[in-house]
Amino acid sequence: MFTGLSAFPLTPFTADKPDEAAFLRLLQRLTEAGVDSLGVLGSTGSYAYLTRTQRRRIAELAVAHAGAVPMMIGIGAVSSAEVLHLAEDAQQAGASALLLPPLGYQALRDEEVFTLYQTVARHASVPICVYDNPGTTHFTFSDALIGRIAALPGIASIKIPGVPAELPAAVQRIAQLRALLPETVSIGVSGDAFAATGLLAGCDGWYSVCGGLFPRVAKAIAEAAQAGDDRRVTMLDAQLQPLWALFRQHGGSLRVMAAAAAILGLTAADNLPRPLLSLSGADYQQIAEVVTALELA
Amino acid sequence: MFTGLSAFPLTPFTADKPDEAAFLRLLQRLTEAGVDSLGVLGSTGSYAYLTRTQRRRIAELAVAHAGAVPMMIGIGAVSSAEVLHLAEDAQQAGASALLLPPLGYQALRDEEVFTLYQTVARHASVPICVYDNPGTTHFTFSDALIGRIAALPGIASIKIPGVPAELPAAVQRIAQLRALLPETVSIGVSGDAFAATGLLAGCDGWYSVCGGLFPRVAKAIAEAAQAGDDRRVTMLDAQLQPLWALFRQHGGSLRVMAAAAAILGLTAADNLPRPLLSLSGADYQQIAEVVTALELA
Repeated sequence: MFTGLSAFPLTPFTADKPDEAAFLRLLQRLTEAGVDSLGVLGSTGSYAYLTRTQRRRIAELAVAHAGAVPMMIGIGAVSSAEVLHLAEDAQQAGASALLLPPLGYQALRDEEVFTLYQTVARHASVPICVYDNPGTTHFTFSDALIGRIAALPGIASIKIPGVPAELPAAVQRIAQLRALLPETVSIGVSGDAFAATGLLAGCDGWYSVCGGLFPRVAKAIAEAAQAGDDRRVTMLDAQLQPLWALFRQHGGSLRVMAAAAAILGLTAADNLPRPLLSLSGADYQQIAEVVTALELA
Repeated sequence: MFTGLSAFPLTPFTADKPDEAAFLRLLQRLTEAGVDSLGVLGSTGSYAYLTRTQRRRIAELAVAHAGAVPMMIGIGAVSSAEVLHLAEDAQQAGASALLLPPLGYQALRDEEVFTLYQTVARHASVPICVYDNPGTTHFTFSDALIGRIAALPGIASIKIPGVPAELPAAVQRIAQLRALLPETVSIGVSGDAFAATGLLAGCDGWYSVCGGLFPRVAKAIAEAAQAGDDRRVTMLDAQLQPLWALFRQHGGSLRVMAAAAAILGLTAADNLPRPLLSLSGADYQQIAEVVTALELA
């Protein structure tokens, strides 16, 4: 389940509570498109804004809906005790895998992060994907630490935040990373604007925010990469450049994707957890134009 | 309660749970020293590592112990819904004031942070202190935003992360900040290494991690500042330079103060919430030497 297209849907809100009906509409779009796997309660899934009870409920809904599609569930929390509770909840809900970020409040040290992964891997009965995204966790993995963690039994994949923009540098980086990992540990690219380059450079899969709402085009890119059709990957990615530009403009993907989901009629217009405020006005209009072009493509 | 020495104690852990007996020992040391106020469940109070239930319990213990000493209680959380629940819990426990950090997961925008403070100030029945510490929250306040928030009814104080190291620049900065605030809003300095300079530069009080374990010397500094005895402030602060050096060396105050509390026999040797690991070996020994010198001073 750690290769191909893994789609990461939003957890839409309404009246500052998870909007279960809208969440199921998003999931349906993804299972109908035949994504290879699903990842819920990642950053885009607003895990950090939900209580333990809300997260258990979202996990149960997701597994029940997804049927045979493998389901990765985010278990990020600042406290290790809470992470272990969330891992237990996710497994009881039927998770196929767990996604674990090194979420800090006090800046974490390498030994603390290693011990966290070691502890969770010992307790878990399903594989773990390491979530590497300094933009949200404020923790930067060294290659040495990635290597130590990847060697732990139970670690199945590394979700990397991106690759160098130029393909030769990206190829070199993935080769360097691959040399640190056991053969059984996959590399999945994240940071959607880097995905095409990452897949061309040899990543095994794409942990995709874009794929969580626009699964057709994301799946076409992942399949073209698997087939070795580099020209098609580049051509399809070019269609998505306006979306990547919006991500850059709005400091990340969440607010843009939340507006896009509303524009598609899948969620309420205001669908973010407070204190986050939904985009509106000219921003919303600009996103609507990009969404319309994508849906027609 | 927003002037003088406000002492911020640790919430010590044992076996990865709050150690209530040790917490009460820390509080006793502070009330006996006659601190002006207390601040629990701040960063040093490890609020981010505790469940809502644990936080309510710590708040209740603190208020019950402190008697007439004003008690500020931290209500930081990523989700605004959780912040409002924590505010309610803290007030029911008997908080005299609430300490609110703009804790983000997705990077917060100014309007989102303003709306958070506005919402909490509307709901709260006790005054609010704005917690400004980009080191832990990863949010940087602009002066314009500080000014807008300070003008909200219910905002009583700003806890600032420090001041420029040179006194003339610090004086200028505090004057600049003061001009943005209503007269009723106090400025409290934090970041203990900056405290002496901050007090000399005109801050109204010291929100003090050091004072949460070494209240005698911290109180002496705050009193000397209130009396306008600048030489005594500087002389007392010089005694604490080895402690500030340890804070710098260990990336902040928490791990050092946790070791110091253990060295004083007030807590278990391993007293941090996981994933944080307690200092040991040569680090612990070095801290023990500084603690011994401070206790003899």
